[in-house]
Amino acid sequence: MLQSKLFFKTNKSKSAEIDAISHELLIRGGFVDQLMAGVYSFLPLGHRVLKNIEEIIRKNMIEVGGQEILMPVLQPKENWQKTGRWENLDILFKIKASADKEYALGPTHEEIVSPLAKKVIFSYRDLPISVFQIQTKFRDELRAKSGILRTREFLMKDLYSFHATQEDLDKYYEKLIKAYFKIFKEAGIGDKTYLTFASGGSFSKYSHEFQMISDTGEDTIYICNKCKIAINKEIKSENANCPKCGSADFTEKKAVEVGNIFKLGTKYSLPFELKFKDKDGKEKPVIMGCYGIGLSRLMGAVVEASHDEKGIIWPKAVSPFMVHLIAIGDNKKVKTTSEKIYQDLNKQNIQVLYDDRQDKSAGEKFAEADLIGTPYRVVVSEKTLSKNSVEVKERNKVAVKLMKIKHLSKLFK
Amino acid sequence: MLQSKLFFKTNKSKSAEIDAISHELLIRGGFVDQLMAGVYSFLPLGHRVLKNIEEIIRKNMIEVGGQEILMPVLQPKENWQKTGRWENLDILFKIKASADKEYALGPTHEEIVSPLAKKVIFSYRDLPISVFQIQTKFRDELRAKSGILRTREFLMKDLYSFHATQEDLDKYYEKLIKAYFKIFKEAGIGDKTYLTFASGGSFSKYSHEFQMISDTGEDTIYICNKCKIAINKEIKSENANCPKCGSADFTEKKAVEVGNIFKLGTKYSLPFELKFKDKDGKEKPVIMGCYGIGLSRLMGAVVEASHDEKGIIWPKAVSPFMVHLIAIGDNKKVKTTSEKIYQDLNKQNIQVLYDDRQDKSAGEKFAEADLIGTPYRVVVSEKTLSKNSVEVKERNKVAVKLMKIKHLSKLFK
Repeated sequence: MLQSKLFFKTNKSKSAEIDAISHELLIRGGFVDQLMAGVYSFLPLGHRVLKNIEEIIRKNMIEVGGQEILMPVLQPKENWQKTGRWENLDILFKIKASADKEYALGPTHEEIVSPLAKKVIFSYRDLPISVFQIQTKFRDELRAKSGILRTREFLMKDLYSFHATQEDLDKYYEKLIKAYFKIFKEAGIGDKTYLTFASGGSFSKYSHEFQMISDTGEDTIYICNKCKIAINKEIKSENANCPKCGSADFTEKKAVEVGNIFKLGTKYSLPFELKFKDKDGKEKPVIMGCYGIGLSRLMGAVVEASHDEKGIIWPKAVSPFMVHLIAIGDNKKVKTTSEKIYQDLNKQNIQVLYDDRQDKSAGEKFAEADLIGTPYRVVVSEKTLSKNSVEVKERNKVAVKLMKIKHLSKLFK
Repeated sequence: MLQSKLFFKTNKSKSAEIDAISHELLIRGGFVDQLMAGVYSFLPLGHRVLKNIEEIIRKNMIEVGGQEILMPVLQPKENWQKTGRWENLDILFKIKASADKEYALGPTHEEIVSPLAKKVIFSYRDLPISVFQIQTKFRDELRAKSGILRTREFLMKDLYSFHATQEDLDKYYEKLIKAYFKIFKEAGIGDKTYLTFASGGSFSKYSHEFQMISDTGEDTIYICNKCKIAINKEIKSENANCPKCGSADFTEKKAVEVGNIFKLGTKYSLPFELKFKDKDGKEKPVIMGCYGIGLSRLMGAVVEASHDEKGIIWPKAVSPFMVHLIAIGDNKKVKTTSEKIYQDLNKQNIQVLYDDRQDKSAGEKFAEADLIGTPYRVVVSEKTLSKNSVEVKERNKVAVKLMKIKHLSKLFK
């Protein structure tokens, strides 16, 4: 991508209103644009990050047997009345439309997936089965805050699993915990993320959150220094000791929730009469689990975890580009060489943002590159060309290295 | 994908309520599920088709320089008041949410992309530029009908282009017409789709629709027998002669709109004060174009165009799978051979739906394969194995051929 053509403008000024470093850097770097409180557009740079996160999540959900579907945003009032959540869920957006029809805007999809599964699941032979979607959710948060960490509209992956027995759900739930850690590791926040005991629903004592350590976080967690699981503050008073290993030695941290998983049991299968005929010929309610990750929130969390005073430091797997190629000065050979490098890397499917702009100084270009935060900065100038070389700097390192142009592409393999 | 594990059930019965053949086949084949009037879920088979269509559209939009972004569903009332569409657009879904905030659910994004572009476009050097998104739209249609052809919630690709001059817009518009025909050709409906003159807005005499011939279509078009462009009935009375070649020789057809493109001119740049500084130093309003394709509608249109009395006939580029592999009988060698073929094709990245079900007859399996409509049906039975072969049938041909197993994978390259 030519930077001169990119639909974005970085922004130097810091805003006093902004309450999270990820919010500031994503706005200033031209990744997102705020339309109104809690509602954002994703610009080309931000959209690329979102797509990378989407692919990491999709791959891992397919690996645990999830089948991708797409359920609607518009949901009938009747389904939400059936579970009592039409009146009780305060963040539910409700619309009164033509012909006095009333809809909810889906904040989650248990009310849709349960009656849908009823059309597919009849016998124990149809179980276990799981479906997921990557889709836009809506929550009427009174206070939207911290940029894309807590918004009124957001992209989410939600997977729903269906089981014949509690044991089968328990087994699958453990599998999902592993898959979630794989996702967070690939996205670059694995070492800061803790499996955290939180309050359960009516069907299990605890649910689990995945909490990433961050000073911006709204949650407080207690990390067990022995076994490294954590407990959310909301249930800490009930748990003087670690529910896993029994230790009482904890470290308190602020954290941001990057995923959550629930054993739903029969909470939704009962009202929707989602049943199956078991091996013994008896009809039984299906046992359910649900597993969520917010994509836009995860993007914000990655920035919280990985930045310095100059800007974002994207982990390779989610970075919008692998290389930020910068041409310095208006020398003709610098231009033709830069273009050749750009074309060569493109041909090898290496994602390059090429700063071809003539009206920016070297200093401005370097500052923008640091703000945008791609893993490699490659500089072409008269000075480097005098040695048939380019200057390579990794975003998360200090060293600047000269490298022969012919060796460049090997670096990104 | 193992068919025994697939989240779907085909449905043999025809419903009297269903008014379009695509609707009937997509419901019966387990591609989509109706949640309520005009609102559908896409099941795994349907989601795969949608993803294929999405990739065709994305590739072609990137080829014309479009940069992908993602704008919100929730849109502020003020933006829609600014263009007068808050009161005048009857299909606009409106929400009153907490703290009496009012939002529109985006049926299109001119009210969002224009003020967004204002943050990016300043000078003639920033033009032309174009952005697109693939995103869910909402229209409060009084009568939703014809299954996924006309719905209240649907996936759409909308591209917006920004130009310094009318000439530049005209040139880009022609480029988009070519890109659209490329998309429709790749999706398998190129030979049934006509560029159709329709009524323009305030800034151009005509807009253009892409109309696909179909008896289910809500539109009537007049195809010029000489130059093969068409005229929508709504403007036929003004046009006794073809606006392109002057001929008066037309054929009347029913058709379904699969895309539309508009020269917006300054209709939205004026209210949002989207201006640029031209070479002559003067401030001028940006000239805009917009270009839409409904993905879910295109999926329905493909089925309208390509089916027979037994079911859907998917064009290869959009089919959920390339091969429907069917094992007949409970012979052990049939099972092991089928599994080996399934694994081998998977390894070569050929998409296979493997009907491994033991409780279905050959007749039922064949009927479902015809209904689902993948391009190749491959049958493994004791009879075929006695000749080290499988039976191959193309969905759109009558002939059934025996083929040595070792030659099978070459067929799909």
